Amino acid sequence: MADTIVIFGASGDLTSRKLVPALFRLFVKGRWPEGSRIVGVSRSEFKHEEWRDSLRTMTEKFGGEHFTAEAWDKFAENIFYQAGDIKNQDDFKALAEFLKTVESDASAGRVYYLSTMPQLYEEAIQQLGKAGLADDTNGYRRVIIEKPFGTDLATAQALNCSIHSVFREDQIYRIDHYLGKETVQNIFALRFANSIFEPIWNRNYVDHVQITVAEEVVIGRRAGYYDTSGILRDMFQNHLLQLMMITAMEPPARYDAALVRDEKVKVLHSVRKMLGSDFANNTMRGQYEGYLREEGVPKNSQTETFAVLKLYCDNWRWKGVPFFLRSGKGMSCRTTQIVVQFKNVPHILFGEKTRTPVGNRLVIQVQPAEGIQLHFETKVPDSEMKTRTSTMDFSFQQAGGAELPDAYQRLLLDAMNGDASLFARSDEVELAWGIIDPIIAAWKSPAAPSLFPYPTGLWGPSEATPWMAEQHREWFDVCPVLR
Amino acid sequence: MADTIVIFGASGDLTSRKLVPALFRLFVKGRWPEGSRIVGVSRSEFKHEEWRDSLRTMTEKFGGEHFTAEAWDKFAENIFYQAGDIKNQDDFKALAEFLKTVESDASAGRVYYLSTMPQLYEEAIQQLGKAGLADDTNGYRRVIIEKPFGTDLATAQALNCSIHSVFREDQIYRIDHYLGKETVQNIFALRFANSIFEPIWNRNYVDHVQITVAEEVVIGRRAGYYDTSGILRDMFQNHLLQLMMITAMEPPARYDAALVRDEKVKVLHSVRKMLGSDFANNTMRGQYEGYLREEGVPKNSQTETFAVLKLYCDNWRWKGVPFFLRSGKGMSCRTTQIVVQFKNVPHILFGEKTRTPVGNRLVIQVQPAEGIQLHFETKVPDSEMKTRTSTMDFSFQQAGGAELPDAYQRLLLDAMNGDASLFARSDEVELAWGIIDPIIAAWKSPAAPSLFPYPTGLWGPSEATPWMAEQHREWFDVCPVLR
Repeated sequence: MADTIVIFGASGDLTSRKLVPALFRLFVKGRWPEGSRIVGVSRSEFKHEEWRDSLRTMTEKFGGEHFTAEAWDKFAENIFYQAGDIKNQDDFKALAEFLKTVESDASAGRVYYLSTMPQLYEEAIQQLGKAGLADDTNGYRRVIIEKPFGTDLATAQALNCSIHSVFREDQIYRIDHYLGKETVQNIFALRFANSIFEPIWNRNYVDHVQITVAEEVVIGRRAGYYDTSGILRDMFQNHLLQLMMITAMEPPARYDAALVRDEKVKVLHSVRKMLGSDFANNTMRGQYEGYLREEGVPKNSQTETFAVLKLYCDNWRWKGVPFFLRSGKGMSCRTTQIVVQFKNVPHILFGEKTRTPVGNRLVIQVQPAEGIQLHFETKVPDSEMKTRTSTMDFSFQQAGGAELPDAYQRLLLDAMNGDASLFARSDEVELAWGIIDPIIAAWKSPAAPSLFPYPTGLWGPSEATPWMAEQHREWFDVCPVLR
Repeated sequence: MADTIVIFGASGDLTSRKLVPALFRLFVKGRWPEGSRIVGVSRSEFKHEEWRDSLRTMTEKFGGEHFTAEAWDKFAENIFYQAGDIKNQDDFKALAEFLKTVESDASAGRVYYLSTMPQLYEEAIQQLGKAGLADDTNGYRRVIIEKPFGTDLATAQALNCSIHSVFREDQIYRIDHYLGKETVQNIFALRFANSIFEPIWNRNYVDHVQITVAEEVVIGRRAGYYDTSGILRDMFQNHLLQLMMITAMEPPARYDAALVRDEKVKVLHSVRKMLGSDFANNTMRGQYEGYLREEGVPKNSQTETFAVLKLYCDNWRWKGVPFFLRSGKGMSCRTTQIVVQFKNVPHILFGEKTRTPVGNRLVIQVQPAEGIQLHFETKVPDSEMKTRTSTMDFSFQQAGGAELPDAYQRLLLDAMNGDASLFARSDEVELAWGIIDPIIAAWKSPAAPSLFPYPTGLWGPSEATPWMAEQHREWFDVCPVLR
């Protein structure tokens, strides 16, 4: 069944660096529905051939080992370009006409990918509606919306409301590329295809959970966006809360979009609301030294580039178990990892001869060193009953040999197949904002915690260490070993 | 504190290949109590210097990288030889006099190591008693007794009775060198220094346990002993039941000889007695092809060289969980491993798209590839939610770098230090015979299961596979990967 992907914002980086290379790899792997088309839309004027040529260059660069000229030439036959301005209703009419001319089959499905500036999402959706492009009488019509989905709860609700006036919820695919990562999906497998983890995956055995998304890079030229966003909006509302939901959720009855998202939403419902002094006690924020000198950043900016949230899920499984969510720019290394720190043994058997064991730890390396490590105690060889912490290790790269596919391959194919399991639902997005909004508000109030400056290249503000020590816990500040 | 180890059967293989090299390594490591002596006793006449020289050769060969001439010369100053016949009371008197001459301190402790033929244990003990050598008024007197400890319950009881007329139980160290292995002691650490295994180490989560002691070798020249023993006496009564006890025991209050052995004994008390058809249904036996042609084996021998026992521990933790104990000669490879096979997930989430996961499995490699592997399910990369079995791996060699010490180092030092945790207590030995005796008796009765011949180099009789399939289970027939 030949379908069509229409990309709005076709001249942007995401299209040439991620989307088209991902679609090309699907094509090479034989997973691209035969004869399916890509139609790029943006304001610039290109001939089809010009756009194809520019995509070819980028795909060769970012498509890796899969690129061959033969495959590209065949793939590129079904790439088209149609100039159009989202603000111009006539352009949408012209697009509708153009789509009819390239679609061989009147029942072809369509995915509209909004890769534009977020400010244009609402207008693009309305224009699609007005031009009849949302009508799925003859073939499916789905829309993929890039993050950020709103900038707070009110804007997210308004956006949802506007989209729902054109598309039903089941036509809407809010993308968070973290969910397309193999290692994130593997958390589902780890938890629900193994019998040994689930029995200890609860407040009886887990001491706390640390979710860290560290970036080595700083903001570069993105001050315009970043300074009004900050790391809470940029990383926590989406990626970090997504990782927390998947770590904390109950097993659904089936791996099914509705049921999986129901369980994820239940996690967000369970997150304890912060009140009063919680905002000062259970959050930390920092700004890397040099941020104020970045081009475009106001000299008095209070925007955070590092944050820690201590969240609780008030439900039967997790009551009392803190989830430490941490993210920063200008950190020691690039790493996304989930650390499930188990409680210590209830009773130390081996007497004073041995040190106190530190408690078991399951480290899920999401990127870049995709894998899982179990930290556990073993006997120190050639000693009495002394123990030390050892590591059992599993590496996706070593196990699989091949390169892990990037997130967009999976997500684009899922959208074409109508599987929304790995996309965010409207209630999920709104609930996530409902958690983040009060913190952002508190941070603008007199009760805000200090904005700690921190040097780049470490693990955020030095104050984070004593802060964690007060919680009687330690950060897992370990850069992954790349192999 | 300088003590003395007196080895009876000093001219035997065990002394020169294992005991003296182990003591020398302790010396090199600085763990040998300074000035302590080794006194060898056997019927042959040697000068001290002759015996030292012969030990030097063997220690250089079996002592590995630790050997240096300087260290040996210093160590050998305290090696002595005293000829003596266990049947001759005067020789024990002479030994007593000789010990006084070499012991600088009247309060020196003594460990008597019985490395003689088992038929001589009783007489040696009585002679020690008569010569006043068991009297621990001035310094400790302990006796280490090699396996086999009796050939059935009656002989073990008689031997215990005889020894107890001379030594108190706390002076008796029944050695099973398996308990000296680092990887066996590590099972204590694995279970009781980690919080994540104990919660799932029971009938709710464990499907069954497989304990395999496979030997590649055949009996060689040992027909005289082996044909009257068979593998049940040779391996099951001691090594396999020991491994089962450590796998199945409850956590003791402390790591303490009395408390650890109390818990081990409780496991043996819980083993369900076989009755009637159980002997045919819950045991298997085999004899390797060629056994009857081995020198010294009677042409009609029914001695087993392979056996499987399916045992149950009738207690709250293990009720209904079968423990499959298996050992054989002439097997595919040399390996001792404990496989804890967990139950499968209660509910398969990922639908029919995926195969049924096989259930988690913890593989404890006791020898020769000392380590631990966890078999668990991970997502197949670049697929929908398909899973496959992956392995998390821990290797003692890779973690520690150094060679693991052999069992005798640990056990000899423990005996000198008065720590009996890793030695078998009288009730333990008798209970073990109480489990094995009825099986041996049944195998001599008309109700015996068939004695299956099997070719060497495989995993025992081919009948073992369908036998296990009838149990709805599979053998873990995997040779360890040596690194």
